[in-house]
Amino acid sequence: MFNIAILGCGVVGSGVADILFDKQAELSKRFNQEVKLSKILDIKNMDGTPYAPYLVTEPAEVFDDPSIKLVVVTIGGLDLAADRCFAALRAGKHVVTSNKAVVAAYGRELTKLAYENNVRFLYEASVGGGIPIIRPMNICLSANDIYEIQGILNGTTNYMLTGMYKDKMSFDDILKDAQAKGYAEADPTADVDGFDAARKIAILSSIAYNGFVDFEDVKCIGIRNVIYADHELAATGGFAIKLIAGSKITENGVRISVEPKLVSKSSMLAAVNSVYNAVLVRGSYTGDSLFYGQGAGKLATASAILGDIIEILEAPERQNLPAFVDKTATIVKDSQEKERFYVRVKAEFKETESEELKACINSVFGKDAVYLGYALSDNSTAAFITDYCSEAELNNKCNELSNCSYVDAVTYTMRVAE
Amino acid sequence: MFNIAILGCGVVGSGVADILFDKQAELSKRFNQEVKLSKILDIKNMDGTPYAPYLVTEPAEVFDDPSIKLVVVTIGGLDLAADRCFAALRAGKHVVTSNKAVVAAYGRELTKLAYENNVRFLYEASVGGGIPIIRPMNICLSANDIYEIQGILNGTTNYMLTGMYKDKMSFDDILKDAQAKGYAEADPTADVDGFDAARKIAILSSIAYNGFVDFEDVKCIGIRNVIYADHELAATGGFAIKLIAGSKITENGVRISVEPKLVSKSSMLAAVNSVYNAVLVRGSYTGDSLFYGQGAGKLATASAILGDIIEILEAPERQNLPAFVDKTATIVKDSQEKERFYVRVKAEFKETESEELKACINSVFGKDAVYLGYALSDNSTAAFITDYCSEAELNNKCNELSNCSYVDAVTYTMRVAE
Repeated sequence: MFNIAILGCGVVGSGVADILFDKQAELSKRFNQEVKLSKILDIKNMDGTPYAPYLVTEPAEVFDDPSIKLVVVTIGGLDLAADRCFAALRAGKHVVTSNKAVVAAYGRELTKLAYENNVRFLYEASVGGGIPIIRPMNICLSANDIYEIQGILNGTTNYMLTGMYKDKMSFDDILKDAQAKGYAEADPTADVDGFDAARKIAILSSIAYNGFVDFEDVKCIGIRNVIYADHELAATGGFAIKLIAGSKITENGVRISVEPKLVSKSSMLAAVNSVYNAVLVRGSYTGDSLFYGQGAGKLATASAILGDIIEILEAPERQNLPAFVDKTATIVKDSQEKERFYVRVKAEFKETESEELKACINSVFGKDAVYLGYALSDNSTAAFITDYCSEAELNNKCNELSNCSYVDAVTYTMRVAE
Repeated sequence: MFNIAILGCGVVGSGVADILFDKQAELSKRFNQEVKLSKILDIKNMDGTPYAPYLVTEPAEVFDDPSIKLVVVTIGGLDLAADRCFAALRAGKHVVTSNKAVVAAYGRELTKLAYENNVRFLYEASVGGGIPIIRPMNICLSANDIYEIQGILNGTTNYMLTGMYKDKMSFDDILKDAQAKGYAEADPTADVDGFDAARKIAILSSIAYNGFVDFEDVKCIGIRNVIYADHELAATGGFAIKLIAGSKITENGVRISVEPKLVSKSSMLAAVNSVYNAVLVRGSYTGDSLFYGQGAGKLATASAILGDIIEILEAPERQNLPAFVDKTATIVKDSQEKERFYVRVKAEFKETESEELKACINSVFGKDAVYLGYALSDNSTAAFITDYCSEAELNNKCNELSNCSYVDAVTYTMRVAE
């Protein structure tokens, strides 16, 4: 008998219950033992729902029940959810969670505690919703030295960036639209400022680079300053704008950030639209691999939790303490790396002056800077792509450019993803 | 001690050896036991190569060596490779192979034999090269009812279709180019006629639909009849042409084929270019997921084999007989399903007659048929996309259209992927 308890019966938790109702007979047959949902711990009133018969309100009813082998933690927030994970592992139960805040903050402690208690702690659903990414990285790709990850890990912002371009909308309008559709929360900070994606890229990077990456070390630049004209001008140069949660191994350590970047339209990431997520993984042997799918949603996320449950049913004993439990990655804060940048300038358009502006850009940024022209949507906004330069060089040259009589100001810069 | 033997030291086999040389110390540490390449069985002379010290020529040296726990079978062809897999499993050794012909023909027998001998038979590398797809389907997505797969599973043909369009080439010329670059073999039949992809989609479908699919039941239409004008006209309608190895669950069973299809440019599959592969998996809970990467190549394929080795090191005991071992899927040969088709016609272009041709198409195929016009590259080739119709209806209407005085002949049809 393999009884399962769900802690927190919100959107994802109820999705897990729904799939278990649907699949527990099939799972019991597949694994030759009775697999079933046994209890749901929540303080809500669930009278009249299919979950009511399973409801318990006292944690001890789960933790002290020896028939419960696995606990699904789908409580939101941080502290209570983390406490429940620790308590379940201490009680000798496997834990599966979709709570990225818990994994980002306590992943190494929870993984170690699971190991010590000879149970498993899995969290495929915490990154990329329904997309299989953690298990493929842990097993399938793990002979590789993974050296870079570029992820579109937040569906809200990808929906907003896609819609902003498609429907020529301002940030404020597309945010309202996303809120109206339920894709963005009333307080959208976690999404639009990149903090949600920061936790996810920190989790993936810890696994990929065999050293713990603290999400608080992730540089976050959200999408609040991206305007429609940026999309228009980027498209002129063959790019799309995506909020990239990325990390890479450099000579001095791991660079990691969440920031809007220009992505070449020939890249698979450029084709990831609306609420979909994707993760591009670069490995020493495999080159580029990409994993794409629904990054959120009740059933997609619940499906990833079920994948972890199935993994545990197949191999309850599998134990292999990942390197990030004991090792911490070195994070590079100020990079000297040479990159290309998109630079947006404010420059009043006067018929004859586009050529002069271009000449000015090339005289400051060199002949390999690519002038993108003025935005059709905004006569005072022009942009260009720099040649490879460091961030310090960029800043110096932007200052120099501001002195050009055709340029009012440099108003925004974004990196170009390579 | 976990000794590994490689049978067949060709491109992929030597890649596995190279990665093991590189990683065996790391693997030994990770799994707390000595993991190493112990023997290579091959009849080639390997003097002077790093493989020479491991070379043995007698199978008994592998099968009778109790220190060898795992055998990698990277022999090409069918019979010998299959024999070696059976022999290794009978000798109580885990088997990992990249040989899709063996898996497609004997996958169920080998899986059962492994189960009976309490060892594992894994073959992640047999489909999609370095792309993790079999393990994600087996575990991560396995709570889903997968109902459709659309794969670009042959790098040679994807390279050819991509190049044919990009460089306006004929089939013969792009084939010569692919052969010169080593992407196509002297006898290109297995690739261009779809037989290679047929084995791969049969393997994936057996896993996805919990019933064995015989690759000989896969309808194969290769890419020999696709011409440059098809790409041009498809692009006009917002489509790319891809060789799709696809299968889906229908009311009457599994439909499965390898055939060139029109893929919407808004689909992720349309962005898969050159030798890359991708697999789109449609599941009841996850919706669309896509897995993308290098579908071939020495190190990418070897990396997938290493993933299987790591899986076995982590969970040597995992045993769970998949449904396809005992169940056979029902295959639908003649479908009544309504689909959209691309129809290419030969119709001599005369200045004023494009409108007449369009009228003729709409009168036979209905007002929802979308006329794509004449190819710029070929004045006598025009095309359109039909409304949803069955294959029988298509054939009848094509006959009817041939009677139209503006149409010389219907010269080619392809399905539109949905």
